[in-house]
Parts: sequence; structure tokens; C-alpha cells
Amino acid sequence: MALPSVHMLQPATVFRKGNNLYLSRYDCDKRRSPHIAFASIQRSERDTSIDPKVESLLDRVKWDSKGLAVAIAQNVDTGAILMQGFANREAVATTISSQKATFYSRSRSTLWTKGETSNNFINVHDIFLDCDCDSIIYLGKPDGPTCHTGTETCYYTSVFDLLKEQEAKGSKLALTTLYALESTISQRKAELAEGESGQPSWTKRLLLDNRLLCAKIREEADELCQTLENDESKSRAASEMADVLYHAMVLLSKKEVKIEDVLNLLRKRFSQSGIEEKRTRGSHKSQEN
Amino acid sequence: MALPSVHMLQPATVFRKGNNLYLSRYDCDKRRSPHIAFASIQRSERDTSIDPKVESLLDRVKWDSKGLAVAIAQNVDTGAILMQGFANREAVATTISSQKATFYSRSRSTLWTKGETSNNFINVHDIFLDCDCDSIIYLGKPDGPTCHTGTETCYYTSVFDLLKEQEAKGSKLALTTLYALESTISQRKAELAEGESGQPSWTKRLLLDNRLLCAKIREEADELCQTLENDESKSRAASEMADVLYHAMVLLSKKEVKIEDVLNLLRKRFSQSGIEEKRTRGSHKSQEN
Repeated sequence: MALPSVHMLQPATVFRKGNNLYLSRYDCDKRRSPHIAFASIQRSERDTSIDPKVESLLDRVKWDSKGLAVAIAQNVDTGAILMQGFANREAVATTISSQKATFYSRSRSTLWTKGETSNNFINVHDIFLDCDCDSIIYLGKPDGPTCHTGTETCYYTSVFDLLKEQEAKGSKLALTTLYALESTISQRKAELAEGESGQPSWTKRLLLDNRLLCAKIREEADELCQTLENDESKSRAASEMADVLYHAMVLLSKKEVKIEDVLNLLRKRFSQSGIEEKRTRGSHKSQEN
Repeated sequence: MALPSVHMLQPATVFRKGNNLYLSRYDCDKRRSPHIAFASIQRSERDTSIDPKVESLLDRVKWDSKGLAVAIAQNVDTGAILMQGFANREAVATTISSQKATFYSRSRSTLWTKGETSNNFINVHDIFLDCDCDSIIYLGKPDGPTCHTGTETCYYTSVFDLLKEQEAKGSKLALTTLYALESTISQRKAELAEGESGQPSWTKRLLLDNRLLCAKIREEADELCQTLENDESKSRAASEMADVLYHAMVLLSKKEVKIEDVLNLLRKRFSQSGIEEKRTRGSHKSQEN
């Protein structure tokens, strides 16, 4: 049996009680259990190969009685919650080293890396612990649909729709505002393609008329600038920005560009802040010339 | 002891085994456990007041051996994962009826509504179940900071920062792309306010020069329109949209408007799709006149 590492990132007192080691707490859950953190010494053989720094970090996590913590995979660009599983020490250590979201399967009692059969890996950019150190976010970029059903995320059953008995309308992803708007615009586009009659909505009019759409984008951008130039109110600036975003998203829909692709680009340009920003701007400028 | 409702949203076979009722499954977890769903008949007194439709819905959830499921609260506008707790039948039923995110505290063995002491409620707009029906998203709008430490979310400890021993730099929220960019711009603004010397970055130049910033916003909006007018590539459209977003976000930073406020406005305008869209557009137009 391997002893857990005591290379702590910050000083901590280690003491033994029964079959377990207890560590003094220095960051997590100060309110609820101020003095001790649990660290099992019942490690697997594979643990011995884990970097001592990673070991110390894993000691921070408040594993449950089965050695597990909740692990949530989130899309770094869209914020969509892709799936939720459980992770043990080895799963988190593997995720850190491979940067592929890895979980512990409670039903199969084994480690599993999302994508190992489907090839739809979740490429992890960072891992976050919550204030209690018993919940983990794998913040990353999925290679493809996360759900085994082929949908983008595992969350496509709306309780409120079920209660309204709207299940027949089909599944609805748990979309946040920007993506719900993108989905609405996409729906209008599909309705137009189906030749739906009647008075077209504003979105449909924009989708049908490139000149109107471009005139609106230029107009709204101009109005956004005026909020700064004329020292208009904050609420006016927010409203004009909402208009810019909406009209620009109708254009993206026409061009078949997903807002996720735009955010992916923004992240790559700005992920390293200053230096990256200037370097990428340089190459972007030369791309413009 | 109250018997669970058998008013199902879709037909289901109910059978008893020992002290429990089992229901035939019709939607969840088809791959892993195709035939039965567990529904405990050991209900609390308070359960008897639950709407039969809600009862049926709660029967869909694959509660664990302690009658719990993972519940994740997510900001409907930003996508930020606010916190993660556990919910039992009563917690979900209470969330449905009150539309305030409610959990089951495992340490205190009691129901608790987030905000009941802090007043920082999470106003739930919809609830989603995952494909296995054992994980729940409370998609909603927080009244204030969610974490008891006063931070916006409970996830502010970056594992990769810890491994790089960058803890001293302070906590970093688990930000997705748009909010990471907003945070970078905000940081540049703070550096300017501190009178930092040296060659200013592009963001700083924009922050210092309203004429340059507005000229860039108008120029980038124009270039975005040109991608449609001149039938340019999808990648060009994505790139121009990234430019529009970035420059417009610098303006928002100058106006002290959060992108969350813009999304909040967009959601209110478009949440009811067509009808709302036209109605709100009407009132928005009159606001412009």
C-alpha cells in the first residue's frame, strides 16, 4: 500500500486515525468542516506513478466514502454542460496527464475516458474545484457529440416541457441565452425552407433580404458607437449591443457559421492575453491586407 | 405511508417488489437498464401534496440508494456553473413549485433552498434531466453571488494554476470564452487605471481612444456585412464576427455594461419566440422613436 504524498502546495499537518490519513485544511470548505480533510491511504498500485504535485492536489479533494467526487464536463466555448459523471483520484490524475476527460464508472467499477469507444473525446483545458472541494469541472472542448444518443449534450429532457405535456415536440437541449437565440433563428430559417406561409416574423424578413439585414447591422453598430460618442445611458448601450448581436447572428445563420466557431476563434486569439493578442492581431491584420 | 401516483405522462407498468414499487421505463437510460425504474414508496408526509403530474415526473428520475440525484445550478444567460448539490424528490418538487433552486443537504439531512439565508436565490427557468435520468440541471438566474464566500460561482480554484503554483495570483473563476475575454478587457482597463507604463496593448489603445474604438466597430461591422454581400468564406465570416464581438465588448467595458446584461435583455426579447419577438420589437422601435 502506497502512502499518500505529503508534498503539499501549502503547509499542512498530517495525522493518522485508524486506516486513514487526515490533513489539516487550508482552503476548502472552511465554513462547514474547518479543521480536517480526508485523504484515504487505500490507493491503487497505479497511484504510485502519479507526480507528487498532482498527489498533493488530489489530497485537496474531499472524496466521498467511496473515494469519488462529482465531475461535470463543460464546453469551454459555449458553457454547455456536456455530461456529469464521477471521478476518483486516478480519474482526475489521468485527466490532468492526458487532458482527456476521464471518469470512474460506478456500474463497471473501472476508469473510463469519454471518447475511448466513440472517439468523441472531451479535450480538457482546465479543471476547477468548488469551494467545498467535492465537486469538479472539466472545462474543455468536445471532439463531437457527448451523449451516447448522438446529441451534443446529455441534457435534452426539459422538465417544464414534460409538465406542459409538450414532449411530442421533441427533445430540447438545455440551451443558455445565446444558443437559444441561435436555435430560434435556425428554426425560422427551417420554417422558411419548408415554405411556411403567413406574415413573416422580423427574423424571417431579415433572412430573406440581405440588403435589409446588412443595413440593419451597419445601423445597429452605428447606434452602439453613438452610445459612447454621445454619452448615452448604460441601458441604451446594452440594448444596442443586443441589437448588434441579434442581427449579426442572423447573418451568421445565413452564412452557416455557428457562434461556437466564432468563440473558438476568439479563445485562440486571446487565450494567452497580451502577447498572444498582439501576435494574433499582427497575423490577423496581415490576413486583412 | 402515501403510495406514489401512477398518473404517468406516458403509459407505464407498475409492479411491487418487497417494499418498493417498480415502474416500466419509457425514456431514460435505455442503454444501461432498459426495463425498470426505481420508485420508492417511502415518502414523507409532505409528498402527499405534490401534483400527480409532478409525481409522475419524479418517478422518471433514477434516484440513488439514498434517494438523491446530482443537481447542478447553471446561469441561464452566461452558462456559468454556479454550484452543485444533491436533490431528493421533495427538493425537485419544491424547485418546480417555487422556481427557486432547492437541494437536499446531506450533512444536515434537510431540504434547503439556496438563498434562504443569504437572499441570493437562484430563480429557476427550466429543469433538465440527463439521458440517464440521474443528473439534473437547474437552469436559472441568480439574484446575487452564489458562493458562500461571496464569489459569483463556487468554482474558483483552477487545478492547472495550482500545478503551476500560481495560487498566489488569486482565485480564477471557471470562465467560458466570452467571459474570459470580458475579464481580460476588464483587467486591461484596471491596468490603465493603475497607470501602468510601457507599450500599450491593442485593447488598451482602444480603451484610451473612443474615436479609434468606434471607427473599428463600424469598420468590422461593415466587413462582416461584406462577407454576405461578396459571398466570402465561412471562416472569413467567423473571423469578422469575432472582430465585431471583441471591439463591441471593449465599448461595453468602457460603458461599464456586462455582457450578461446584454444577454439578459436578449432573453427577455426572444424567450417567447415569434409573438414576443414582434411585440418586443414594436416596443423597442417605439423606444427608439
